[in-house]
Amino acid sequence: MLPSKLTGTLARLGEVRIIQIMERAFGESRNTVVGFGDDVSAVRLSADKIAVLKTDMFVGSTDLPPGMTLRQAASKAVVANVSDLAAKGVHPMAGLVALGLPRSLHRSDIEQIARGLSQAAKRYGFPLVGGDTNESEDLTISIALFAIAVRSRMILRTGAGINDLVAVTGEFGSTSAGLQSVLNFGIPPKKLAKDLFEAVYNPTARLDLGLRLAASRVVTSSIDSSDGLAWSLHQISSLNRVGILIDNVPISKPAREFAARHDLRERDLALYGGEEYELVVTISPRNFSKAYRATKGKLKKIGYVTDEFSGVRLRLGGRIVEVKKKGWEHFRS
Amino acid sequence: MLPSKLTGTLARLGEVRIIQIMERAFGESRNTVVGFGDDVSAVRLSADKIAVLKTDMFVGSTDLPPGMTLRQAASKAVVANVSDLAAKGVHPMAGLVALGLPRSLHRSDIEQIARGLSQAAKRYGFPLVGGDTNESEDLTISIALFAIAVRSRMILRTGAGINDLVAVTGEFGSTSAGLQSVLNFGIPPKKLAKDLFEAVYNPTARLDLGLRLAASRVVTSSIDSSDGLAWSLHQISSLNRVGILIDNVPISKPAREFAARHDLRERDLALYGGEEYELVVTISPRNFSKAYRATKGKLKKIGYVTDEFSGVRLRLGGRIVEVKKKGWEHFRS
Repeated sequence: MLPSKLTGTLARLGEVRIIQIMERAFGESRNTVVGFGDDVSAVRLSADKIAVLKTDMFVGSTDLPPGMTLRQAASKAVVANVSDLAAKGVHPMAGLVALGLPRSLHRSDIEQIARGLSQAAKRYGFPLVGGDTNESEDLTISIALFAIAVRSRMILRTGAGINDLVAVTGEFGSTSAGLQSVLNFGIPPKKLAKDLFEAVYNPTARLDLGLRLAASRVVTSSIDSSDGLAWSLHQISSLNRVGILIDNVPISKPAREFAARHDLRERDLALYGGEEYELVVTISPRNFSKAYRATKGKLKKIGYVTDEFSGVRLRLGGRIVEVKKKGWEHFRS
Repeated sequence: MLPSKLTGTLARLGEVRIIQIMERAFGESRNTVVGFGDDVSAVRLSADKIAVLKTDMFVGSTDLPPGMTLRQAASKAVVANVSDLAAKGVHPMAGLVALGLPRSLHRSDIEQIARGLSQAAKRYGFPLVGGDTNESEDLTISIALFAIAVRSRMILRTGAGINDLVAVTGEFGSTSAGLQSVLNFGIPPKKLAKDLFEAVYNPTARLDLGLRLAASRVVTSSIDSSDGLAWSLHQISSLNRVGILIDNVPISKPAREFAARHDLRERDLALYGGEEYELVVTISPRNFSKAYRATKGKLKKIGYVTDEFSGVRLRLGGRIVEVKKKGWEHFRS
């Protein structure tokens, strides 16, 4: 999902470029309501109904951190897809799963994958209704989700207005701290390890909050944070041609602890992470309390939309610094 | 797609078993109209409307024969999915594509893949509206298709009646002859090579015929032949708990030529092939002419449904032999 994931020849080309090549080749279609460039795609079914479509692929060689079980991997493959629907305020109706399975896998591995897929689908309340199984050299779990939504109710990445507040559904940094821990720093003290590993191995999607936010009807734009908070903010900024000033980066306690232990900058863990499935939304100031109540107080203001500059900036006491357009540097270097 | 594709540990488990493990873990869902075990899946949208969902994954290490370009591979990935909808008489409405790309690929490779996807989607009249790009050790092209259909009009694998005629939309054997040619026999004479390679590298789905057959409203069951004619006949036989007697295996001219050149049994090329995207349907004898006209004469009778035995048998002059339940033995041994 991240440009930084692609290395070698493909890295020089970049994922954004690859998607542009696809988009250009595929062309436009009259019935496409949302194409490439948002968290999901959507096609028109009737005057007000749309079919919402999403696919996201989990690949073993690049998406499986050390220590993650196949059950967790399968579950995470589902979560990554659900998170994108959550950001749009859309409930998944059914899912498909296409598997690429290395020939070294055993029956118990297959059962683990099945259990992970099944548990995740049940948690988010939709059935897995079909699929395809193949042999592959690289473990591949490709999920496709389908939903029906009311066109005018779906929240897009576009729609943010000047002076809108920017808010998120949770704290950031645990996942990148956890991944760094797994990859570079060895096992931290028990309690911290538990929190960090939970973030890495058992991520959850904010489907319930996404649905509540959509039901509040006051969210002007929304994106999930799977490519990192900074990356998501830059997407909202560039797609809406607005600037975003952040004055509060919500950093999780485990991330703060981890940063302190290893002399890392805690806000970098939170901003330049990824694989973290919070929602990033914009809401007019006059409607914020309505959205806040809808999420039962889970929503956190982190900044606001402005036309005074473009891009994303962060206020640090008296200083204002640029937030870089980068995400999590992939764990396979 | 074939059980025989899986080798090693997975081969001993078998793809059918793997799908059973998934199906059991996923459980039943109230709104699932068609789950695993047919060419597509479907969920209920209203009293008569269903959402039709399909995913099929193309994997480089097992699905890419020598000499196939990336454009052809991408196009074939689409064809494999469209063929399953064709068998159900359903027109694809939109597609998604999730890519796993080896880091060795260049920009021109990506453009070839994009072109293959785009050309195939255009040929079958639907837009590709979204996707996902990843790095992978194995080239992976996972397509998901979506359609809306009227529940009572969709043709399933079940529904075949005793004495129904069994018919197909074309001739068989070119693809397996072509694959054997590519893999084991070197390049045949020019004209023959052209026909065989066309079958292997540029397969097409019978979407138009599938839609015409569905519109005729007389097809009682249907399946595509992507896993081989024998395999498909066995599916219809076992799902409907009926026997099938075949008295005519339509063998393509190139397959007959190839068989003669290499002293192979031509009907084995036709029966035990695969990656060949004809439709296999059953129709009551009294309705056959209607279906025949609907396909403008393309439909070929090959046998009939019987309750006199189970399984699939072939009449060879005076003898009757068992048709084995096997498909194409995969080209990667």
